[in-house]
Amino acid sequence: MQDNERISDSDELQRSLRQIVQLLDKQRLVEELVHRQDMPRHGLVETLVHKQHVAELQKLLDELDPADIAHLLEALPLEDRIRVWDLVKAERDGEILLEVSDAVRESLIAAMDTGELANAVGQLDTDEIADLAPDLPHEVIQDVFTRLSPEERDQLRAALSYPEDTVGALMDFDMVTIREDVTLEVVLRYLRRMDELPDHTDKLFVVDRLGVIQGELPLNRLLLHDPEVMVAAVMEDDIVSFEPDDDGREAAQAFERYDLISAPVTDANGKLVGRLTVDAVVDFIREESSAEVLSLSGLREEEDIFAPVWKSLKNRWTWLGVNLVTAFIASRVIGVFEGSIEKLAALAALMPIVAGIGGNSGNQTITLIVRALALGQISLANARQLFAKEIGIGMLNGVVWGSLVGLFAYFFYQSVSLGLVMTLAMILNLMLAALAGVFIPLAMFKLGRDPAAGASVLITAITDSGGFFIFLGLATLLLIKG
Amino acid sequence: MQDNERISDSDELQRSLRQIVQLLDKQRLVEELVHRQDMPRHGLVETLVHKQHVAELQKLLDELDPADIAHLLEALPLEDRIRVWDLVKAERDGEILLEVSDAVRESLIAAMDTGELANAVGQLDTDEIADLAPDLPHEVIQDVFTRLSPEERDQLRAALSYPEDTVGALMDFDMVTIREDVTLEVVLRYLRRMDELPDHTDKLFVVDRLGVIQGELPLNRLLLHDPEVMVAAVMEDDIVSFEPDDDGREAAQAFERYDLISAPVTDANGKLVGRLTVDAVVDFIREESSAEVLSLSGLREEEDIFAPVWKSLKNRWTWLGVNLVTAFIASRVIGVFEGSIEKLAALAALMPIVAGIGGNSGNQTITLIVRALALGQISLANARQLFAKEIGIGMLNGVVWGSLVGLFAYFFYQSVSLGLVMTLAMILNLMLAALAGVFIPLAMFKLGRDPAAGASVLITAITDSGGFFIFLGLATLLLIKG
Repeated sequence: MQDNERISDSDELQRSLRQIVQLLDKQRLVEELVHRQDMPRHGLVETLVHKQHVAELQKLLDELDPADIAHLLEALPLEDRIRVWDLVKAERDGEILLEVSDAVRESLIAAMDTGELANAVGQLDTDEIADLAPDLPHEVIQDVFTRLSPEERDQLRAALSYPEDTVGALMDFDMVTIREDVTLEVVLRYLRRMDELPDHTDKLFVVDRLGVIQGELPLNRLLLHDPEVMVAAVMEDDIVSFEPDDDGREAAQAFERYDLISAPVTDANGKLVGRLTVDAVVDFIREESSAEVLSLSGLREEEDIFAPVWKSLKNRWTWLGVNLVTAFIASRVIGVFEGSIEKLAALAALMPIVAGIGGNSGNQTITLIVRALALGQISLANARQLFAKEIGIGMLNGVVWGSLVGLFAYFFYQSVSLGLVMTLAMILNLMLAALAGVFIPLAMFKLGRDPAAGASVLITAITDSGGFFIFLGLATLLLIKG
Repeated sequence: MQDNERISDSDELQRSLRQIVQLLDKQRLVEELVHRQDMPRHGLVETLVHKQHVAELQKLLDELDPADIAHLLEALPLEDRIRVWDLVKAERDGEILLEVSDAVRESLIAAMDTGELANAVGQLDTDEIADLAPDLPHEVIQDVFTRLSPEERDQLRAALSYPEDTVGALMDFDMVTIREDVTLEVVLRYLRRMDELPDHTDKLFVVDRLGVIQGELPLNRLLLHDPEVMVAAVMEDDIVSFEPDDDGREAAQAFERYDLISAPVTDANGKLVGRLTVDAVVDFIREESSAEVLSLSGLREEEDIFAPVWKSLKNRWTWLGVNLVTAFIASRVIGVFEGSIEKLAALAALMPIVAGIGGNSGNQTITLIVRALALGQISLANARQLFAKEIGIGMLNGVVWGSLVGLFAYFFYQSVSLGLVMTLAMILNLMLAALAGVFIPLAMFKLGRDPAAGASVLITAITDSGGFFIFLGLATLLLIKG
């Protein structure tokens, strides 16, 4: 199936990348020369040099696996990426589009016309077409649709109907089904009449005449048992199966727990409708964990690192906007205590310590809780213990770090009471950070929202405003008015 | 192999968890009663009730798959976890120890004596023993070692010799090898003599008489081709293979790119030494991405969410300590400008806005760069473009958000010049944030360090001190002295 050289080692990939970049640079140089000199009689020579570079580049690309080309396209700046994309053989376009990230896919699709796109997409399986569909222009989908067989149309319609992140959106339709009342010999003969088995076939699905799943026949058992034995006698009947509406996250966790390679997807009546395979699950796990990291720091989605500036801004503005509001609030909290600060400017120098350490400590807590929620380790049954533990840590941290910052304040400002106020404020703010660090993601989770979304912005807002209020409030009470 | 009920759906797992917690609570209640009443004549009755609960719990546990028990143990508070662990059948201990996280494993091992541990570990494969080895007491390893066959001892020694995160540490030794000069029929007969194939066998490895790999025979082809054909005629000879010293991250990326289920691991001469399978890769990907999220916010490792407080403190202190130092520096930066703040207390209220928005924007940038580095999308060839793009975004963000905070400052303090100073400071600090957000992870990466480690603490340090210095410096120059 795969006749291209595959590169298991990233140094080699980096080398290919450098080669491509060099060839593109040379090309550009030639173009610039032609352009600058503007002399038609030189045109011919330069065009020959140019053609030579293009041929070399094309040769390099043809030798690479589609997955490796996809990886290289991710690492190329926009202009170079499109140059390379134009050189990739049309029949490989579809496969590569599947492999690249959403952000890069958008840039590639933008560089193709409707006909090219329809041809590229038309070569894919229906479940793959469904994966690309959200990014495709309407005409292209229409065009592809007309080329499909009625059965494939049904599959495509079904695949498109399931929401993202469900098993239905992750499954494919390539499966081999057999009956339980035949011998392994019959199954073996049946398989030998096929050209190839679908990728990731580690088991055959045993169904009855209505298509309801009865069990699984692992290829293992097919190979190891006597061919005279009946399927029913050696099939596995305790199977892990999914339904199209199941949450992709839970299916992924089940794949991890049970080390599955493929699993049947059935409707509510047990009728086989598709198949989930480990490669789709691995991609899903990657995307999920990327999304978690990104949304923690207030990014909406994965970003093409070479996207135009305005596109990146869209991705970042939602939470920076929220941050602006929370920063204004923190500023007004300080504004209330401007009188105290005028009397004792040291307060202004010390207050960011209370807020800053609170913020970092809160970020640690919230990160751990978001992780534990994603892994399904937290339930309401154990939430109480979590609060107790984190507040204990906050208090202990407060005593230790609070004493240090208290000493620092005393050392610089020669005031015991200022040092004590610092210590007390630290303890209280770190406890607040712990409380909020557990509460925010749990509350989000309960409300059915993404617990990671903007978590860092939210916790920082609370430890900033809270820290300023606690420290300046205590100082005003105990130092200024006292 | 697997005769336990497996649970594909997390609601069901949560139900099991609740059942277990309820049973444990009942048990505790009984124990408390016995203890409180201190009446020996009641003892008998309560012990009976107690035994009944224990039996019920045991039955529940016996029905669960080891992977599911592992998952439940993660979600149980320490005391309950140990109670449940004591009830798990000894012969399943090894498998469960493999499945739990490092942090939880430590707590389970602490609750076992040397003999129990040696028995549990002794039942595992050598590559699995190697995985557990770092957490086991020396006597246990010694004990297990003496029970192994000479060949297994060599394997264990080899597996222990590879550093964590290399292919050598991830591989196993369960593989089926065949020769190329036999027919498929011979291979089929050879397989039928085996009891079972190793898990995740999707291909057989073809080796010569010295054990040097010649190709792979996918089970697919074994099934689909005529049994009379020779192995050499249908084997795949362009194979993706790894060496034990290869980086686990790169192997994982290759598994993802090429959708592999298993791959041979060979020494420098091509001699087959082990096998890498997708389940090990999936676990590795999970751990890697967890480590990235955690180290971004300055946590050293995954944490048992129910670990005793002092254990969690150890995990969090390294970066909080760094944070303390950076907070002191930021405080001293402000200290330099105390004179200006005394004259214009509004500066104290406005400066956290500049620092805070800079911090969040810098965190967004650093998160994206760390992600792109982890996915291998960044090389030195494209670093220049990255800097240009991020600084462009910083500047645009600065103009937009800077104008807003400038208006805010003007609105609250009725000073046009103060508003302008705010705007200018925001633009400069957001550009600083962009610069540092790209520079820190790239520099760490170049130095061979983890680009994610404490990234959030470091970027916040720069945007805090930098933001205070830029804003207060500009204000002093233009407003106070001007």
